[in-house]
Amino acid sequence: MRAEATDKVEGFEPPALGEPYLLTPGPLTTASSVKQAMLRDWGSWDGDFRAMTGDLRNRLLALTGDKKGEFDCVPIQGSGTFAVEAMLGSFVPRDGKVLVLANGAYGLRAAQTMQYLGRAHTLIDKGDYLPPRGAEVAAALDADPAITHVIVIHCETSSGILNPVGEISEAVYAKGRKLLIDSMSAFGAIPLDVNEIRYEVMVSSANKCIEGVPGFGFVIARKSELEAAKGRSHSLSLDIHAQWAAMEKTGQWRFTPPTHVVAAFLQALKLHEAEGGVAGRGARYAKNRDVMVAGMRELGFETLLSEQWLSPIIVTFFCPAHEKFSFPRFYDLMKGKGFIIYPGKLTVVESFRVGCIGHMDEHVMRRVVEAAAASLNEMGVDTAAPPATAIAERAKLAA
Amino acid sequence: MRAEATDKVEGFEPPALGEPYLLTPGPLTTASSVKQAMLRDWGSWDGDFRAMTGDLRNRLLALTGDKKGEFDCVPIQGSGTFAVEAMLGSFVPRDGKVLVLANGAYGLRAAQTMQYLGRAHTLIDKGDYLPPRGAEVAAALDADPAITHVIVIHCETSSGILNPVGEISEAVYAKGRKLLIDSMSAFGAIPLDVNEIRYEVMVSSANKCIEGVPGFGFVIARKSELEAAKGRSHSLSLDIHAQWAAMEKTGQWRFTPPTHVVAAFLQALKLHEAEGGVAGRGARYAKNRDVMVAGMRELGFETLLSEQWLSPIIVTFFCPAHEKFSFPRFYDLMKGKGFIIYPGKLTVVESFRVGCIGHMDEHVMRRVVEAAAASLNEMGVDTAAPPATAIAERAKLAA
Ligand SMILES: Cc1ncc(COP(=O)(O)O)c(C=O)c1O
Ligand SMILES: Cc1ncc(COP(=O)(O)O)c(C=O)c1O
Repeated sequence: MRAEATDKVEGFEPPALGEPYLLTPGPLTTASSVKQAMLRDWGSWDGDFRAMTGDLRNRLLALTGDKKGEFDCVPIQGSGTFAVEAMLGSFVPRDGKVLVLANGAYGLRAAQTMQYLGRAHTLIDKGDYLPPRGAEVAAALDADPAITHVIVIHCETSSGILNPVGEISEAVYAKGRKLLIDSMSAFGAIPLDVNEIRYEVMVSSANKCIEGVPGFGFVIARKSELEAAKGRSHSLSLDIHAQWAAMEKTGQWRFTPPTHVVAAFLQALKLHEAEGGVAGRGARYAKNRDVMVAGMRELGFETLLSEQWLSPIIVTFFCPAHEKFSFPRFYDLMKGKGFIIYPGKLTVVESFRVGCIGHMDEHVMRRVVEAAAASLNEMGVDTAAPPATAIAERAKLAA
Repeated sequence: MRAEATDKVEGFEPPALGEPYLLTPGPLTTASSVKQAMLRDWGSWDGDFRAMTGDLRNRLLALTGDKKGEFDCVPIQGSGTFAVEAMLGSFVPRDGKVLVLANGAYGLRAAQTMQYLGRAHTLIDKGDYLPPRGAEVAAALDADPAITHVIVIHCETSSGILNPVGEISEAVYAKGRKLLIDSMSAFGAIPLDVNEIRYEVMVSSANKCIEGVPGFGFVIARKSELEAAKGRSHSLSLDIHAQWAAMEKTGQWRFTPPTHVVAAFLQALKLHEAEGGVAGRGARYAKNRDVMVAGMRELGFETLLSEQWLSPIIVTFFCPAHEKFSFPRFYDLMKGKGFIIYPGKLTVVESFRVGCIGHMDEHVMRRVVEAAAASLNEMGVDTAAPPATAIAERAKLAA
């Protein structure tokens, strides 16, 4: 059912031109119909393109569960980082103060962005793999009444951990503060229903779980927050209020939109709907993860995270301690077999990551495991004797 | 010669799928091979894509005439406005002061950007169609010793005027200041050789005269300026120094690049080279303009600008004063015949614009004129009696 719905072919067709699968957290492998949607030029001022922009905004809003029309969607040019910066610059008042919850590279990047903005912020840094919990957020908010906003990373892509945004949201609103969510790598595959999890603004981008190609991000924000954002931004280009106001008035993007990327994204949204929306997409990714993790564990690879925190987005594995294992060589061998994997982003131990997102299903994931087995073999890494991991201290995460 | 070189077909093939030609200043009609370059997914971390980024930077640098390796090229995600803002935020010190030379929307936008940055600036506003001249720039610099930088728009796309950057550069450096150029809509078709015209930084984007698709811009800057830019930017995303330093070190973009747009741009750069580079591209556009303007004048349309200031990029025409002429209707009629034109951006009179850039040649421009004739006819606007223009005061520009 999934297969036919998503790309009019039996099963997931292999990428065209013999190119490798991207087992990376975006850019990722996209459906061929998504790429084919880029085979024409659109005038950005023309009515046809304005209608596409309207459609895109409505389709994204429909994924939030907002039935009362309390939210609006504002796409913004640039990569995901641009959208996160636009969110922070537009929704945090100049005299506001942000509590940044970090457990990886993207949380730390949010803190760095606040530094650039020159606005007050404080950080809870949980290191490489521990999740920030509701109780510690509540305590931090009690301790510092100046904090007005909290930002959390939904899926911290640098480890693949799925942070507990539900309990964090409860803590934030129990203390009368506002929540901003970087749901870059989760939105579209992991539920973030406004009726279930309260937040003011969230941000994601075209080339993650909706499976479009990279070129813009989008903000989904409470309309009252959009109105209040006027005049706050540090940047003309990243001013979400101005982008929103112009789009509401004219249907156009303020500045030249990435027209082809937008057309591709619309097609990706249609495939997403045909697959059963967030639930259908999430189920496929979960299956991808389960098949891939089980197979990799059989080969002796160990995951950084325990079951509870493993996201269906991307999984971090420790590099085996085996003396013959070298990540650059493993990367090249895997690429030679048609799979591009991702280096790790942990600060203390050697690791690599395998993405579960993109236009691929469990059959592809089985072939990934086969390719990993063959690569280990070629490197002379004995998979019969499971390699011990490089570090003594393991990530035994407390529930 | 041009035809075969640029797209392996006899003459310029019509857009695929029966889509209209975009007679607009970008997004524009691109070659089909440019769009086809987007039919695969690239891993942004992978060596293949890094090589593409390196190639792109080198090819752009080669267009500047820099033989001594004094300049470097830094692409940056987002639209052209993002690149202009990145330039101003990165190259103007926080205690610097910018003289903005404006004669249209893009000059005024540069001033607005300075406003957002909260850095000192002053404006020479020449209105809708008068060029800023060297002598008045020199006088302004004499009058205000605090000014450190001048920004000029190479082709002010809102009217199509080609500003005299050569004489402005001379005035700026004679007074010991630094020049920044927004060459968004000119670079690649109008010479801007570093050996002829001195400047510190210029900015352009993928979807103008190189004929790529929209999704990123690029800065070409003197390396000494790039080094000095460290720590100045108001924005993480738009920090050109950081983008440059990361690219130099790793060959990668700091944040997810628009991979498909980059692949398309590389193909566009190859077609640009095959057409004879800046000279070849500029010659085709000039021919496009000449054929189109001559034809439109025969129909009774009048250009805003006198010969001397007409760019080969885009041309502004007055809306005829004829009572039966309506721009929205003219737009729709032209679109129905396969041509998307552009509304005017003048503040006082009704006008429209016709672009000369994109993947099209003089044969297409002849058909544009025929379509305009037929559209006037269908509107009942009598072309035998040339319409008087709507305004009494005409743009008689002093040389
Ligand atoms: C959670 C998260 N936030 C932010 C980003 C930054 O996005 P980009 O690389 O598009 O700038 C990413 C990218 O993977 C991400 O996963
Ligand atoms: C001279 C000039 N500057 C800046 C811009 C802004 O570029 P964008 O619309 O890509 O933001 C344009 C766009 O046409 C332009 O022509």
